[in-house]
Amino acid sequence: MSTTDWSLSATEVLSRVGDALDDGRNDVLATVIDVEGSAYRRPGAKMLIRPDDTAGSITAGCLEDEVARVGAAVRESGEPRIETYDLTGGDDALWGHGMGCNGVITVLLEPVDERYRPVVEAVAAHEPVAVATVVGGAGTIGERAWYRPDGGFTGELDDRVREALAEPAAELLGDGGADVVEVETDDGPVEVFVDGIDVPPHLVVLGSGPDVVPVVDLAKRVDFRVSVVSFRGARASRDRFPGADAVLSSSPADLGNDLSFDDETYVVVMTHNFVDDGLALETLLDTRVPYVGLMGPRERFEELREEFDDEVSMTGEDVERVHTPIGLDLGGDSPYEVAYSIVGEVLAVANGRSSGHLSVRAGPIHDRRDLDAGPAPE
Amino acid sequence: MSTTDWSLSATEVLSRVGDALDDGRNDVLATVIDVEGSAYRRPGAKMLIRPDDTAGSITAGCLEDEVARVGAAVRESGEPRIETYDLTGGDDALWGHGMGCNGVITVLLEPVDERYRPVVEAVAAHEPVAVATVVGGAGTIGERAWYRPDGGFTGELDDRVREALAEPAAELLGDGGADVVEVETDDGPVEVFVDGIDVPPHLVVLGSGPDVVPVVDLAKRVDFRVSVVSFRGARASRDRFPGADAVLSSSPADLGNDLSFDDETYVVVMTHNFVDDGLALETLLDTRVPYVGLMGPRERFEELREEFDDEVSMTGEDVERVHTPIGLDLGGDSPYEVAYSIVGEVLAVANGRSSGHLSVRAGPIHDRRDLDAGPAPE
Repeated sequence: MSTTDWSLSATEVLSRVGDALDDGRNDVLATVIDVEGSAYRRPGAKMLIRPDDTAGSITAGCLEDEVARVGAAVRESGEPRIETYDLTGGDDALWGHGMGCNGVITVLLEPVDERYRPVVEAVAAHEPVAVATVVGGAGTIGERAWYRPDGGFTGELDDRVREALAEPAAELLGDGGADVVEVETDDGPVEVFVDGIDVPPHLVVLGSGPDVVPVVDLAKRVDFRVSVVSFRGARASRDRFPGADAVLSSSPADLGNDLSFDDETYVVVMTHNFVDDGLALETLLDTRVPYVGLMGPRERFEELREEFDDEVSMTGEDVERVHTPIGLDLGGDSPYEVAYSIVGEVLAVANGRSSGHLSVRAGPIHDRRDLDAGPAPE
Repeated sequence: MSTTDWSLSATEVLSRVGDALDDGRNDVLATVIDVEGSAYRRPGAKMLIRPDDTAGSITAGCLEDEVARVGAAVRESGEPRIETYDLTGGDDALWGHGMGCNGVITVLLEPVDERYRPVVEAVAAHEPVAVATVVGGAGTIGERAWYRPDGGFTGELDDRVREALAEPAAELLGDGGADVVEVETDDGPVEVFVDGIDVPPHLVVLGSGPDVVPVVDLAKRVDFRVSVVSFRGARASRDRFPGADAVLSSSPADLGNDLSFDDETYVVVMTHNFVDDGLALETLLDTRVPYVGLMGPRERFEELREEFDDEVSMTGEDVERVHTPIGLDLGGDSPYEVAYSIVGEVLAVANGRSSGHLSVRAGPIHDRRDLDAGPAPE
C-alpha cells in the first residue's frame, strides 16, 4: 500500500478514476456504503485499487490491504461485490478491538467502467452529482443512475425507483453525504446506495504575493478548488502557485465577470493593497459569497469602509460575511501559521462548524441523518 | 526571490544559517527588530540572504527584494547595518499605502559569522536561547551575547548591561518574543535587541498508521518538532514519515524512558489500539504534558477509563489535559481534514489561544508587551 496516495482527497481519487477510464485500465473502485458504530471514514469514502497500489482511503489503514486483495479478485471476475467487515469483535478477532478500527464497515467493490464517467465529468466540471447504485434486495447489484440537481436522474434504474430516490438524492447531494436508502418495489425492497458527490467548495484568493503560496498549499490539501486572482498581471504566473486549479489576472472591477461568485465560493482578500481591497470588497458584497476574509487589522477595514463610503454600504448581513482580521485564533505569525489560521477558518465556515474543541462539543463528530424513502409510487 | 523558500519556518531558516557557517559562506541575515503599527511579521522574523536567493520572510513580500539588495552591500562591506522602512506614507510613497504593508519596520542586516553559532547549536539541541544584540545608542552595533535559562549570559556585552537584560531576556525567551530594550550605561543609553529564540514545541504522535502521515506533514509546516512513536517496530521505518524529526519504536510501558515528556510536549494518541492507548494514557498522565489528544469518540475514552480503572485515575486537571474526541470542530472527514483539525487544536493549545474567529476576538492579533530594563546597576 502506498501511504503517499492514501491521504488523497476525494476529488483527486475521482480524477484518477477518470485516468483509469481514459487509459482503459481494469482498476477497481472500493466505496464505503455503510458504517455502524465508530469509524475513521464515513459512507462515500473511496479507494481506487490498481494492480500495484491503491489511491484514497476507506478506514484508518486497518482494512485497506485486505480490501485491496478482494479488489484483485473483483478485477479478475469483472463482477461487483459487497463485503462487510465487523471490527467490533473481542480481543481475539482479527479486525477486532485490538486493531482499534471499531464499527461494522460495508464496502462496495466494483470494476471501474464507463458507468462512472458521468461522475468523473461532473466533478471535473465542478458540478454536483449524486450516484445511486443498487447494493442489495430485489435489484441487481451495481445497477446505477446519476442524479443532477437540474436534470434529475438518468441511467439504469427503474423510473419508479428513481422517483422515490429524488428527494434523498437531492438532500444527500446538498451536504456531500451518502447513505443506503431502501425503496419498496413490486419485487420487494431494493437497497440503493445514494452517494452525494458534492463538488469541492471554491476558494478564491485575491492576491499574488508569496504569502498566497502557503494558503493555496493548505487549501488544496483539504480539497478546496482554488483560484488565485492577481490584480497585477505580471505576477500571476502559473508556476508560482503549482497547486492552484486556476491562476488568472483580473481587476477589482472585472472580478464579477471573470469569476462566478455563488454561495459556495469563499473569498480571501490578501492583495495588501488598500485601494484594490476596497474595490474588490465593493464587488464581492454585491454577490452571494457567504465568506469574505480580509487580511489586516480591524482598523484597516474601518478605514476601508470610510474611504469607500458610498460603494461599500454594509448591511448587518454583510458584516457577518466579512471576517477581519481573517482567520482562527491559533497563534503564531509565521507564513504557514497565518495560512493555517486562514484555511482553518474557511474550512469551518464552509462546513458550518464552530471551530471550537470537539472535546467540548455535544453529540457525535459526524453528522448523522435518518433518511427514508417512502414506498415507490404505484 | 525564491517564493518556495519564503515560507520556511524559523527553525528551518536557522538551520540554513548553520549550513552557511559550516560551508564558510558570506551569507547575510536580516532580522526584523522593530515594528510600529500593523505588519505581517513581528520582531524576530528572519530572512537569510544568499548570493542567488533568500530563505525566510520579514514582511508579506513587500520588502524582501529591497532588503536583499541592501544585503548584497552588507556582504561586500562585512559591516552590520540597520535600515528602517516607513510603509505608512501616502498613496504616492514607494512603500506606502498602495503597497499595503503598513507600519514602520526596522531591520538589522548582518554578515553571518561564528557569533551566530551558539544560537544555531541551541536550536539544533532543542534548547531555548535568547540573543542580545546592540542595535543603537552608545554601544557598537552588532555586539552580542547569548542568554540561556540555566547559564545566564555569555558573549561580548558588558557585565552590567547583561545584568540589566537578564529579566527581559528570560521573559522574551519564555514566549518566543523579541523586542528592543534600552539600557542606561555610563556612556549613555544603549539599545539592545533581545531576540527570544524559543525552540519549537515538541509534538509526539503515538501511532504509525497512514493517518499519521498528514498529521506529521501539517505539523512540520507550522514548525513543530515531530516525533513519531510506533508500538509495532516493523512499521516504524523512517521513510514512511519523511518530514518527522524522529521515528522510533517503543512500547506504552517504555514510553517514559524513551522520550522526555515536559510541559512543552504535546501528545497525539492515534494507535487505533485500545490496549496500547490505555497503557500509553496511563504513562502520559504521570508526566507534565499539557495536552493529550485521543483519537476516537468520547465513549471509547470512557471505556478506556473503566478498563484501566486502577491505573488511569484521572484528576480534574487530567480531564482538562485529555482532549477527546481530538481536534477542532472544522468539519470534513478526509485524512487531511482530520489531520488539519488535530494540528489546529495542538497549535491553539500550544500558543494558549482560543481557536475562535479572530474577527470576534477583542484586542490586537499579536500579543503586545511593554518591556523596560531598569538602569544598569552601578
